[in-house]
Amino acid sequence: METRGYTDKKDAVQKRLRRIEGQVRGLQRMVDDDVYCIDILTQISAATKALQAVALELLEDHLGHCVSHAITSGGPDADAKIREASDAIARLVRS
Amino acid sequence: METRGYTDKKDAVQKRLRRIEGQVRGLQRMVDDDVYCIDILTQISAATKALQAVALELLEDHLGHCVSHAITSGGPDADAKIREASDAIARLVRS
Amino acid sequence: METRGYTDKKDAVQKRLRRIEGQVRGLQRMVDDDVYCIDILTQISAATKALQAVALELLEDHLGHCVSHAITSGGPDADAKIREASDAIARLVRS
Amino acid sequence: METRGYTDKKDAVQKRLRRIEGQVRGLQRMVDDDVYCIDILTQISAATKALQAVALELLEDHLGHCVSHAITSGGPDADAKIREASDAIARLVRS
Repeated sequence: METRGYTDKKDAVQKRLRRIEGQVRGLQRMVDDDVYCIDILTQISAATKALQAVALELLEDHLGHCVSHAITSGGPDADAKIREASDAIARLVRS
Repeated sequence: METRGYTDKKDAVQKRLRRIEGQVRGLQRMVDDDVYCIDILTQISAATKALQAVALELLEDHLGHCVSHAITSGGPDADAKIREASDAIARLVRS
Repeated sequence: METRGYTDKKDAVQKRLRRIEGQVRGLQRMVDDDVYCIDILTQISAATKALQAVALELLEDHLGHCVSHAITSGGPDADAKIREASDAIARLVRS
Repeated sequence: METRGYTDKKDAVQKRLRRIEGQVRGLQRMVDDDVYCIDILTQISAATKALQAVALELLEDHLGHCVSHAITSGGPDADAKIREASDAIARLVRS
């Protein structure tokens, strides 16, 4: 199977994603228990920040791996990879 | 039990949170399957947007319920509620 | 003239906006001087944060002034004002 | 003088920055004229989005120019440039 920028740190990424899954399940319990709205919003902000932190780490790995390979290989693929990464960055900035 | 701004729409909120939980579990499968980094980033942006949409809805309900009650009751609690809501908005804008 | 939530602190708001205008003019000088891209990005992040801080302050004043007046006056206008404020919050969160 | 990723499109970048400067001056006139808070917030969102759009364009140019040069040159500078760009992306995402 092809390696990815995150292949070497899969366990760490999975651990963070499981923690975020736990935060989202925690949100469901909070709604079930009629917890105060502001406390729910605080937990949503925490989950959002945690998701963005995973995204930023995957992005850095992607630049250092896939994008770097495309650039050292040369050719039109490098521009395509940079454009693709830039579009992903724009989606993150706007979300 | 005290009602919250979201009490009337608990089912709809829970449904959205379960869908987000599914997105986060989907992210774990994607990492497991060595899916291409950019596709994972796209899914993270989608989950982030979905979380923020829940937050924005809870916030509107909170303004129309808890904050409105504090304002019609008058007294210093109104200012405290507005300040508290503004702090929550700032956390959302910065996350 | 009708008062606004920010009427009492116009001078402070104007001072902050003039400082942001100065940051944007500084960006133009940086581009003129071929300053390193990352330093320009840092300055853009600073100007963006400063704009959002003004927005968050105006929003809090708006909740404590216009929205509070609509709520104490009662009637359908309160709901409309809360909806309008929520839409503005959503634009801030997504920008 | 050393070229930058944005050297070839300086005029276009400057034009956009001058338009943003005009938006910020417009904000000052709006505050002077006691314009309705929500309309000011809408204009702030527009200026924020315009600033972020400039940042995203500079970032793409930076990846295609400085970062690409560091990668094709090889050596430890490539990692440093990727880390530096990632930090700038994190600041944009969080602002």
